[in-house]
Amino acid sequence: MIYFKNDYSEGAHESILKKLNTTNLVQDKGYGNDQYTKEAKELIQKKLKDKNADIHFISGGTQANLTIIGSILRPHESVIAPETGHICVHETGAIEATGHKINTVKTIDGKLTPELIKPVLIAHEDEHMVKPKLVFISNSTEIGTHYTKSDLEKLSNFCKENDLYLYLDGARLGSALTVKGCDLTLAELSTYLDAFYIGGTKNGALLGEAIVLNNEDFKVNFRFHLKQRGGLLAKGRLIAIQFLELFKDNLYFDLAKHANAMAALITEAVEEHGYEFLTKSQTNQIFPILPNEVIKVLQKNYEFYIWSKVTKDTSSLRLVTSWATKEENVRQFIKDLDQAVKGL
Amino acid sequence: MIYFKNDYSEGAHESILKKLNTTNLVQDKGYGNDQYTKEAKELIQKKLKDKNADIHFISGGTQANLTIIGSILRPHESVIAPETGHICVHETGAIEATGHKINTVKTIDGKLTPELIKPVLIAHEDEHMVKPKLVFISNSTEIGTHYTKSDLEKLSNFCKENDLYLYLDGARLGSALTVKGCDLTLAELSTYLDAFYIGGTKNGALLGEAIVLNNEDFKVNFRFHLKQRGGLLAKGRLIAIQFLELFKDNLYFDLAKHANAMAALITEAVEEHGYEFLTKSQTNQIFPILPNEVIKVLQKNYEFYIWSKVTKDTSSLRLVTSWATKEENVRQFIKDLDQAVKGL
Amino acid sequence: MIYFKNDYSEGAHESILKKLNTTNLVQDKGYGNDQYTKEAKELIQKKLKDKNADIHFISGGTQANLTIIGSILRPHESVIAPETGHICVHETGAIEATGHKINTVKTIDGKLTPELIKPVLIAHEDEHMVKPKLVFISNSTEIGTHYTKSDLEKLSNFCKENDLYLYLDGARLGSALTVKGCDLTLAELSTYLDAFYIGGTKNGALLGEAIVLNNEDFKVNFRFHLKQRGGLLAKGRLIAIQFLELFKDNLYFDLAKHANAMAALITEAVEEHGYEFLTKSQTNQIFPILPNEVIKVLQKNYEFYIWSKVTKDTSSLRLVTSWATKEENVRQFIKDLDQAVKGL
Amino acid sequence: MIYFKNDYSEGAHESILKKLNTTNLVQDKGYGNDQYTKEAKELIQKKLKDKNADIHFISGGTQANLTIIGSILRPHESVIAPETGHICVHETGAIEATGHKINTVKTIDGKLTPELIKPVLIAHEDEHMVKPKLVFISNSTEIGTHYTKSDLEKLSNFCKENDLYLYLDGARLGSALTVKGCDLTLAELSTYLDAFYIGGTKNGALLGEAIVLNNEDFKVNFRFHLKQRGGLLAKGRLIAIQFLELFKDNLYFDLAKHANAMAALITEAVEEHGYEFLTKSQTNQIFPILPNEVIKVLQKNYEFYIWSKVTKDTSSLRLVTSWATKEENVRQFIKDLDQAVKGL
Repeated sequence: MIYFKNDYSEGAHESILKKLNTTNLVQDKGYGNDQYTKEAKELIQKKLKDKNADIHFISGGTQANLTIIGSILRPHESVIAPETGHICVHETGAIEATGHKINTVKTIDGKLTPELIKPVLIAHEDEHMVKPKLVFISNSTEIGTHYTKSDLEKLSNFCKENDLYLYLDGARLGSALTVKGCDLTLAELSTYLDAFYIGGTKNGALLGEAIVLNNEDFKVNFRFHLKQRGGLLAKGRLIAIQFLELFKDNLYFDLAKHANAMAALITEAVEEHGYEFLTKSQTNQIFPILPNEVIKVLQKNYEFYIWSKVTKDTSSLRLVTSWATKEENVRQFIKDLDQAVKGL
Repeated sequence: MIYFKNDYSEGAHESILKKLNTTNLVQDKGYGNDQYTKEAKELIQKKLKDKNADIHFISGGTQANLTIIGSILRPHESVIAPETGHICVHETGAIEATGHKINTVKTIDGKLTPELIKPVLIAHEDEHMVKPKLVFISNSTEIGTHYTKSDLEKLSNFCKENDLYLYLDGARLGSALTVKGCDLTLAELSTYLDAFYIGGTKNGALLGEAIVLNNEDFKVNFRFHLKQRGGLLAKGRLIAIQFLELFKDNLYFDLAKHANAMAALITEAVEEHGYEFLTKSQTNQIFPILPNEVIKVLQKNYEFYIWSKVTKDTSSLRLVTSWATKEENVRQFIKDLDQAVKGL
Repeated sequence: MIYFKNDYSEGAHESILKKLNTTNLVQDKGYGNDQYTKEAKELIQKKLKDKNADIHFISGGTQANLTIIGSILRPHESVIAPETGHICVHETGAIEATGHKINTVKTIDGKLTPELIKPVLIAHEDEHMVKPKLVFISNSTEIGTHYTKSDLEKLSNFCKENDLYLYLDGARLGSALTVKGCDLTLAELSTYLDAFYIGGTKNGALLGEAIVLNNEDFKVNFRFHLKQRGGLLAKGRLIAIQFLELFKDNLYFDLAKHANAMAALITEAVEEHGYEFLTKSQTNQIFPILPNEVIKVLQKNYEFYIWSKVTKDTSSLRLVTSWATKEENVRQFIKDLDQAVKGL
Repeated sequence: MIYFKNDYSEGAHESILKKLNTTNLVQDKGYGNDQYTKEAKELIQKKLKDKNADIHFISGGTQANLTIIGSILRPHESVIAPETGHICVHETGAIEATGHKINTVKTIDGKLTPELIKPVLIAHEDEHMVKPKLVFISNSTEIGTHYTKSDLEKLSNFCKENDLYLYLDGARLGSALTVKGCDLTLAELSTYLDAFYIGGTKNGALLGEAIVLNNEDFKVNFRFHLKQRGGLLAKGRLIAIQFLELFKDNLYFDLAKHANAMAALITEAVEEHGYEFLTKSQTNQIFPILPNEVIKVLQKNYEFYIWSKVTKDTSSLRLVTSWATKEENVRQFIKDLDQAVKGL
């Protein structure tokens, strides 16, 4: 079976494994006080063009989200998030478990805009209701779309005007920033946000995400929160070493570009057959709508999620490519798709 | 500098890195539904001689403690723990952050006994107080001591008689079970406990602990709790592969034995000089009491913690050895100790 | 100004004040272990025709909701509630503050049905999502509607079949059960529910609600939860004495009937003018849609909430009557309404 | 039976009941937005000589403690409290249920001092431990002692120097401030504290405490916290009216003085017999140590707690007097004590 199921089906990029090998027996301090962590933080600060960015490494996205959000909000404050947001559906109530309500917002494309947030602010008028305080977005979103520079700028301005924090879940940030024609750099993106994380797990690392705190208030005592939520790894260097490799040269973005390119090949093939998509995605997650009979044929050799029923005879798939997706497998998939369509 | 500071100063045992390399590009399911995780669980069940033991892999000890304890207790229930217990002092209130009080008990040697627990039960008489429900112990303890078979049997019986759960933090379980003359096997230990975890991070893994749930009630829906607390890794195989290596043959115990042997060498040398210890430890953590001037000399070439002032002129150290400690470094340390003592 | 703003604008029914006076200096035990509490519990058990119903008194509805729900659910379990439910909007995230997500459901009339709940169960398929476990309903609802016997029976059966708890917020239970033609008694209602509370604050008491636990699991140690959440009053008798008065004879239902009758008078008048209502209510909360100019006139002498804009020229009001609403004030309101309508 | 068991064995002072009667049918706004609440706040501000003191009314002490402490602390921050503090033992883990650890301190007399707090600060050195942030004291303490002006001044200065908040549980504040020779006024006390509450339940009210927030940071959005924890009563006026009566003229202090005087009579009698006390109390809680045989005799006609075994033949009692304690009952108790002693 070939996997288009997700972007965490393999281990890590080989250069990461190599580096883990060469550094393996060097003795160093625990809990992120080691030399590798120091270097990795400085390297990311350099990429962000911000020496004051506060960087922390953590093992996964849910843990990043709950630790950051739980550390920021006062008990009565809530999060505004798109209904499709990862924290709303796929984190088993992790945010609520830290005591905070999420105000969910219906969206067409998984993205928040000032227009979508305003009604939430208006509805929450007094102390009988929670106080919305943090806006949660994902880039790329859970349905493959991405934010442009202008999108983020508008959101960021709106948040500042309304005394809201802006936080971005960057599990697939690499993919979002390397979309063809993307007019947004990592450093620019960072200026719009109070906090975010740069996803490693889904872009070439064994595990690990890099938390970036820009808001001065968030930086104070953040390591206490990390430790309290179980996120401060004894061998913190494990994640740091991986980010050192990912951000040395341009590896992080090269890997993401590859994933996007592989998805684009499939998109092109699907479009040629005249099939539609659930969402307009240029990232590494695409949602083509195919005849059920075609899907049945493809399932014989490929692992992927069937996302939703669309009509009686068609369904949408979620196809995910990654840094590790082999072009030959994509080519084969396209051939098999062609065959299946012909067989209708 | 040579480290006797802790048992997480290096990466992982080389066979683990090798296995990560050879399996790196195999595609498999995410979130612990892969083949490696299945195999690792079965292997540990075999070592435990219990097919029904429920095994889960998680990235660190604090996260294991908070996820397990948080999933077990009802809101009004509390934990009984020795004052020196890791959850009491060194986890930044992680247990309280899940809503539960810890009833701390003063001990001489870091170990709990029925006699020490009884007064807590007597004092908590009605609904104005929390209801003690879970007994927390560590093996080896935070001050280097370990539980014998008889210790555990008594505790386990007492807990059953008093409707208490018994939970063991096994961050350094390997060291505890390989103490010279230890009459306790891993499988036997498991029969005394409602739940525990087998520590990987401090015994040869890059990161990771294996949670073992024996109490049927704890097994239901445990993966929900793992996910909610941020502990369900997308690439769950990363930890499983490491435990596969550690428990293939006898590696886990061999590594721990080595750590204990290295500590024993130092213990012997310290005893020969006539110095005392803060606690009687046969594990990989020892706490010799040395003249401050000797300590000062040793600090030039060795990293370790000064644990406590003992008299005006003496202090206790914490020296920790590990699977990776080189015998030549230990021999050199002993020589340097001899020199320093002579120089007094 | 005359209040149609809510049903808590006055103090308590005079017989309650009288009883507080006559019992004032009797010495008795604290924290609900007194004779009055014992009697009040037995009296309510009698009305419920259930000696095993576990009764507890508490100061308010939000506290009842958070204490009960917080005591019932395991950390990963969630509540299903109508979008208009009090816990969703008007309790400042009190349920989330106990760690639990609410899965909200859009409804037409503020009432849940098996058909509305089913999709929530289907959508929550694995451990990446919370586990819906408790169904929250209000009777009467926050928009004035009420459940019939058949409504509740269907819901109750559905919940049992799907291993869900059914919980009812009875802040305005008196009003719901005394709706003209209501085919449901308090004792019958209790058989359908795992837990509920009988609202005193909005039906004649100074403050206080009577919690009823029917599910055996909920009864164990409930006083611990009450104490932990701050709900165990030192002078518990204060609420018990009030419920003794309310349920001696038929006072509780007489007061509610009066409130309903007062609302019905207004409903009739509004209907005669040909105006519509936002919801079909026979309880003490009604939501007539009136021309803005009429509203402006009424605001001169009456306090009430403007609920929502309906068209450019009309809005809905929330008018609430109570046990203390004077018929003469209602008659005057109707006259003033007539005048205002004529003045258009 | 005559009660010396606690200070909440009766209802309320008669002037309070009278005022509840005369105001009963006045219509006013809900949730503490009424005229009585406004007046009561202003009255207390006047007594505190501080127009900016932020006053809120709440139903009980545990709820006051958990709402205030929960609203103040960030997730990683802890409370320092004496081991005998109400929040440590008698609130069923209410503070931990809001997520915060309590660092308990052994004391001789139930009072905290800078000397007792310092070691806690020193021990909490980094992010592996909670960050102590709030000092909790009770006045009078749970064992009858009270703070002098000098005690509080020292504590307050120490807290400011060490960036700690100082909070006082005033369940029995009336008794503490009316101790013979007390050199501390309510207004002065308020200047030393970041927050406290003035206890009504145990000094003449049916129920209710007045929260006073002095620290500007605590005042922001406090009503959100009140609502979230279930503390915002629909008929908030119920407590406000009681405080209006208690602080009109000098009733609050007169009632407390009476309670102290009644306890002093018993103290004197016990001292005359040559018996000792567990603690030196001048407040309304005293802890005489009596022969078990004497206790047995007294138990026939009096309700009180046996506090602790002192020797084989003697135990300490807790005797509590109140605003409602009748002097004739005290005189009778003293006579019966004399008799019992003679009968030895």
